Amino acid sequence: MADKITSREADYSQWYIDLVRSAKLADYSDVRGCMVIRPNGYAVWEKMQAALDRMFKETGHVNAYFPLFIPESFIAKEAEHIEGFAPECAVVTHGGGEELAEKLYVRPTSETIIWSSYKKWIQSYRDLPLLINQWANVVRWEMRTRLFLRTTEFLWQEGHTAHATPEESQEEVMRMIRVYKTFAEEYMAMPVIMGRKTDSEKFAGADETYCIEAMMQDGKALQAGTSHNLGQNFAKAFDCQFQTKEGVLDYVWATSWGVSTRLIGALIMAHSDDRGLVLPPKLATRQVVIIPILRGDKAAVLAKAESMAAELKENGIPAFVDDSEQNSPGWKFAEYELQGIPVRIEVGPRDIDKGVCIAARRDTLEKTELQLDATLAVQVSGMLSAMQADMFQKALRFREENTREVTDYETFKSAVEEGFVIAHWDGTAETEEKIKEETRATIRVLPEESDYREHYHMDEPGVCIFSGKPSAQKVVFAKAY
Amino acid sequence: MADKITSREADYSQWYIDLVRSAKLADYSDVRGCMVIRPNGYAVWEKMQAALDRMFKETGHVNAYFPLFIPESFIAKEAEHIEGFAPECAVVTHGGGEELAEKLYVRPTSETIIWSSYKKWIQSYRDLPLLINQWANVVRWEMRTRLFLRTTEFLWQEGHTAHATPEESQEEVMRMIRVYKTFAEEYMAMPVIMGRKTDSEKFAGADETYCIEAMMQDGKALQAGTSHNLGQNFAKAFDCQFQTKEGVLDYVWATSWGVSTRLIGALIMAHSDDRGLVLPPKLATRQVVIIPILRGDKAAVLAKAESMAAELKENGIPAFVDDSEQNSPGWKFAEYELQGIPVRIEVGPRDIDKGVCIAARRDTLEKTELQLDATLAVQVSGMLSAMQADMFQKALRFREENTREVTDYETFKSAVEEGFVIAHWDGTAETEEKIKEETRATIRVLPEESDYREHYHMDEPGVCIFSGKPSAQKVVFAKAY
Repeated sequence: MADKITSREADYSQWYIDLVRSAKLADYSDVRGCMVIRPNGYAVWEKMQAALDRMFKETGHVNAYFPLFIPESFIAKEAEHIEGFAPECAVVTHGGGEELAEKLYVRPTSETIIWSSYKKWIQSYRDLPLLINQWANVVRWEMRTRLFLRTTEFLWQEGHTAHATPEESQEEVMRMIRVYKTFAEEYMAMPVIMGRKTDSEKFAGADETYCIEAMMQDGKALQAGTSHNLGQNFAKAFDCQFQTKEGVLDYVWATSWGVSTRLIGALIMAHSDDRGLVLPPKLATRQVVIIPILRGDKAAVLAKAESMAAELKENGIPAFVDDSEQNSPGWKFAEYELQGIPVRIEVGPRDIDKGVCIAARRDTLEKTELQLDATLAVQVSGMLSAMQADMFQKALRFREENTREVTDYETFKSAVEEGFVIAHWDGTAETEEKIKEETRATIRVLPEESDYREHYHMDEPGVCIFSGKPSAQKVVFAKAY
Repeated sequence: MADKITSREADYSQWYIDLVRSAKLADYSDVRGCMVIRPNGYAVWEKMQAALDRMFKETGHVNAYFPLFIPESFIAKEAEHIEGFAPECAVVTHGGGEELAEKLYVRPTSETIIWSSYKKWIQSYRDLPLLINQWANVVRWEMRTRLFLRTTEFLWQEGHTAHATPEESQEEVMRMIRVYKTFAEEYMAMPVIMGRKTDSEKFAGADETYCIEAMMQDGKALQAGTSHNLGQNFAKAFDCQFQTKEGVLDYVWATSWGVSTRLIGALIMAHSDDRGLVLPPKLATRQVVIIPILRGDKAAVLAKAESMAAELKENGIPAFVDDSEQNSPGWKFAEYELQGIPVRIEVGPRDIDKGVCIAARRDTLEKTELQLDATLAVQVSGMLSAMQADMFQKALRFREENTREVTDYETFKSAVEEGFVIAHWDGTAETEEKIKEETRATIRVLPEESDYREHYHMDEPGVCIFSGKPSAQKVVFAKAY
């Protein structure tokens, strides 16, 4: 079995790394800053991809694939973009045994290479909107890495859309950030705050960046997805004009949006515990493990376990039996808790005589007696649904308990060590920067959702927590991953 | 609509490029040798991925992800491997603004980076077999590129497995080449010859390479998938030993196998015609287009078309209606023939009065009258199944008609200009090389299937077509992509 996991209480960062490695989700590779996503981790990514890809297609998007390499001159075309990304790129200088005439950057994001194609594809309003997504790897050189959360190479999807009007592109930006919110909450069971970034925190090359922010179990924030309104910046950089319905030439309006394998890190830090991974059932490839207690008539117990698994599978619940005799039931319990199988069922000869089995939910570890009758799949399905819903509620409660409204800077400084802080800000980048220097807390989000804004009285005017100047609104501060 | 496509008769190579670009399957990018896979082309890849991924999982494999970058010293560990791949690699020399201490190769294939992880994961026979697949991009610097068939970057899957015995690894090698054959024939409707490569044609670092070879419409061969028995070569290079059941240390036995976006090129060249793409129904995201003939009571015709599409979709047949009025039915016919929608249905007011509609199959362009009754989906489903089967049979007939058994070298030289040639070979690399120099034909495959071997009398001894020396068997020669 796996090595012991440090407790969250003792060292949250070490707990995270121990868990990722013990549950065989990912590992460091021999390439500096790059990770190996192991089968257990990749299975979570495949479930995420399937759900997101379906949601993208339901909102009218199609997939495509653009080159890994970007000529240096392309990156340079959008001024903010090159400033933001060039320093963190990996650069190919040789190919096929020869030095290249122009350096190639390994894509840190694909706006430039994609807009060099869009320019060729878009002539008229009839070619719009263009709604394309790409599943790909990207590289951003990182000095300090952490598995899933920050690695030199990671996997992601990046949507890149082109529109005829600013209204349409803004609609798209909001549609996609809402898709991400739905995915985070309904699949990952992770509540998120949806809203805008400040100018200092937005994407290099965007007019506006919208994001979803989640709270981890240590009270820190994690940005779980972004959707950018790129205005006409990239269309201008690549001279991408189109003929409007009215017959005049205009630059195309653009958006881009993405989520990455970082979400796996978020999922772990939002829900898991000292025993290992806690996976929401909707993202578990294997939802139920059946562990036969092999005493007495072993063959009969095993046959029962197999028929239970078959029945669950027939009803769309992925179940499997661990019938190995070399490991004890206790060892198996610990192993599947570590791996985060949502429901564990034990069944032994005495259970079978009584017509029952014992099921335990991974999140609460509570045991329930299930009836071994025709309703087994219904009972298990009910447990899985309840677990999915309860995990969300628990995380939401945690966020609420660890969010404070604060009006003075001294309280602010201690509060940002514990969780999210709702406070007034004077709207200047200068104040934002000074607070960051002094406390390492940043403005995570200017929430867009009215229920959140009302709950925390965000639209009440007041004075800035730092400068004392008048402030029209409160914002969400936190330390972040 | 698209530009005119050159006919196959006039210029087969130009026909191919015209088709790929007109049907918007792929396009050259501004990065030398790299392609953009456009949504129409990527949709085919997604269908291929889904089918293959299911087949891999059914044979016990799981997916994972390994780094894009490979340290130079890793590539160097396996002698044949570095000789084969280093000259065609893209090399990263700078990262994060600094020159790297060790150069990183963008993976041309992942044996070395994967075995550096396997070494850490495998200690005992209990850790075996390890059955892992990866979906990824790879880069091999190419001087002469052709969309899908040969590009600097391409997408693929690469399986990498580790076993305790040579018998198990050989079993795996054969299992996977058979999976590829099944996929090629049942999904791509493309007959393939399964067999071994000669030593000169095998993978750099393999003991044996198995392949599937297909015939294109110009009589040339295309290697559509490979499965390598790597013996203990990579385990030795990475010092990956395990404790056997008997308690002694041994090196692990390895396989690797892959197919790539090249298959899309094969699919096009095997089946398509001068009007555009011909897609086997199993690989078509959109199987049926309904074109309403908007005369008379337009609303009634449109409503009928929509209800037909709904009925087909309910029965699992992806159908859509093109109701645009800006384009004529004739324009639409040509456009969907170009795009390769397997079945086109026209329905107009007179058809509706008669209770019929007209369906045309893309491969034969034959029109059939369908009854507009409750059996519509059954009738269309029958057309799609027949099309899938007929496409395979047509390609098989073509291959048989363009395969010749030849006994003298003069006939051989003209025959390899037309198709596959079955001839005796003395088994030496020298003869193989000379034939290649003189005719540009290579030994494509030493077939493993007994029905193929019997059909072409491959096991009858004779004399080598080139050297006149005794030969134990015939082999398949062809010019190849």
